[in-house]
Amino acid sequence: MSISQLGEFGLISLINKKFSNLSHSEVEGIGDDCAVIALDSNRSLVVTTDILVEGKHFLLDKISPFELGYKSLAVNISDVAAMGAKPYISFLSLALPSEVNSEWITEFMNGYHSLSTKHNIPLVGGDTTSANSGSLTISVTAMGIIDNKNIKRRSGACLGDLVVVNSLLGDSALALSLILKGENISETLFLAHNMPEPKVIEGQFLGSEIGVTSMMDISDGIASDIEHICSLSNLGAEINIDKLPISNELATICKNRDWAITDFALCGGEDYSLLMTIKEELFSDISERYNATTGDKLYVIGKMTASDSVKYIDNLGEETNLGMGFRHF
Amino acid sequence: MSISQLGEFGLISLINKKFSNLSHSEVEGIGDDCAVIALDSNRSLVVTTDILVEGKHFLLDKISPFELGYKSLAVNISDVAAMGAKPYISFLSLALPSEVNSEWITEFMNGYHSLSTKHNIPLVGGDTTSANSGSLTISVTAMGIIDNKNIKRRSGACLGDLVVVNSLLGDSALALSLILKGENISETLFLAHNMPEPKVIEGQFLGSEIGVTSMMDISDGIASDIEHICSLSNLGAEINIDKLPISNELATICKNRDWAITDFALCGGEDYSLLMTIKEELFSDISERYNATTGDKLYVIGKMTASDSVKYIDNLGEETNLGMGFRHF
Repeated sequence: MSISQLGEFGLISLINKKFSNLSHSEVEGIGDDCAVIALDSNRSLVVTTDILVEGKHFLLDKISPFELGYKSLAVNISDVAAMGAKPYISFLSLALPSEVNSEWITEFMNGYHSLSTKHNIPLVGGDTTSANSGSLTISVTAMGIIDNKNIKRRSGACLGDLVVVNSLLGDSALALSLILKGENISETLFLAHNMPEPKVIEGQFLGSEIGVTSMMDISDGIASDIEHICSLSNLGAEINIDKLPISNELATICKNRDWAITDFALCGGEDYSLLMTIKEELFSDISERYNATTGDKLYVIGKMTASDSVKYIDNLGEETNLGMGFRHF
Repeated sequence: MSISQLGEFGLISLINKKFSNLSHSEVEGIGDDCAVIALDSNRSLVVTTDILVEGKHFLLDKISPFELGYKSLAVNISDVAAMGAKPYISFLSLALPSEVNSEWITEFMNGYHSLSTKHNIPLVGGDTTSANSGSLTISVTAMGIIDNKNIKRRSGACLGDLVVVNSLLGDSALALSLILKGENISETLFLAHNMPEPKVIEGQFLGSEIGVTSMMDISDGIASDIEHICSLSNLGAEINIDKLPISNELATICKNRDWAITDFALCGGEDYSLLMTIKEELFSDISERYNATTGDKLYVIGKMTASDSVKYIDNLGEETNLGMGFRHF
């Protein structure tokens, strides 16, 4: 069977089964945005690792080395933030083809360092090697630290909880489409894809809220990501596609070109904002304080249901069918 | 400047300088086999990460998927063992080209699982993606756990300490040379390269010995690796090339082909055994108990000196000049 037939989630399930004989009681493994290592009864480390491959996750002529360095750390810190944790340290491994020179590397490290400095995340280890032409590969491991009572998992959603996101959706995916077509795009749109800002302050605020019952970062697109919350919480969800928060730019471009907004805002991926569930009765209080603390907004896009699947409706209550999020194979 | 002109250690030094503004007092970063995170006054986590790239670290037609899975974890666990630590958990990221199918992956995971099971190391996270043809890439992050008093660093060597290794040297590098020539080799030699056994029990024994003053694993060849102990301990060393422990097979093959033994035993790399310094007055006691505990031997190959460089001598006291260990660029 080919890897693409097996699929990313098939592969993860195969690995999960094989390793089910090995465990440490204080370590939570595969399933959430991060593994969780309980340090004592009060605190845990959370750990995540992501691998970025040239030609699959980025094209060297479409992203500057500074942006790529920034983004490589950002996508990992986004996983740390999604647990509610404070970023702590990182490890960086690079497989470098001969077409990148030391000036390129310096700029890459400047970008990585810029985000590291923003949140005081020392780079404390890694590995470097050469790579085949066209196969620059970046592997980052990031750790966060968190009070045990603040850890947000994908499995905590309850029936009736609101499904909530904390930023406009789809700009990153739209930017990618336009960049690949070689079109000129606004800086806001460009940065949404090339320099996503992980929701570090927001994640810690939401982590400390007991009314937030589950959380994850939006990396593959909500259509794919909400499935994890549903399956691990043994629930379904109803998402109102007319309530997806989008930028004016996304709305305008989609309207002018007759593109489906949901292709970007629901199935696009790489938003690196947070998808969560919140107790309905606590939402307005949390939302108000979130706004006061971060200057940003929470957007309700749906509700957890007793179904075993995700249903998409519009403002008229009509059901719609949609594709899935980004597939890695 | 090209990456090869900058070199691996030039790159590490560039990164080290740039990130010197960021630190946490309880975390020791770049410089040792692992980063060290003090959990409290008694215990630490040690963390290492290695990236293996097709065509640079392995050739798919020269290593079975089972062996490659085993080796991918082994080279990381070797770093954990070199700190004196007990292996704890691992993370695995894979970038997979379409030429490997799900049967290949299953066998790869069987190999990885085999070593994981041997030392009870749960696999608790990772990432998977597709890769370009010919660019299979494996990135592993491994953690160990250790009592703070047992941590062995590269920087602890003292003037007059003996330089010691804990296995025969050069078999892995010799095997690689012969495998690349397409020659038939013995299974012992083959396994020395394709399925190295990390010194887990040995590392923990040596970690608990106060007379062991510094330790690291031999990955690039002693000629390169001893330089790290020297520079971090502000000392030199004198290595007796006639005392390098080698297998009969290495001795015979080198003799028959007129190959220099030191090319393999000193400059070869990928031995994944331990290089350490031991207080001279405690050596025979440690060595005896090491033998009784592990059934294996410690070999004295030299001594730490007040010089600022490494000197190679033979049994007659004559000085010889040698090349350096494996270069990644």
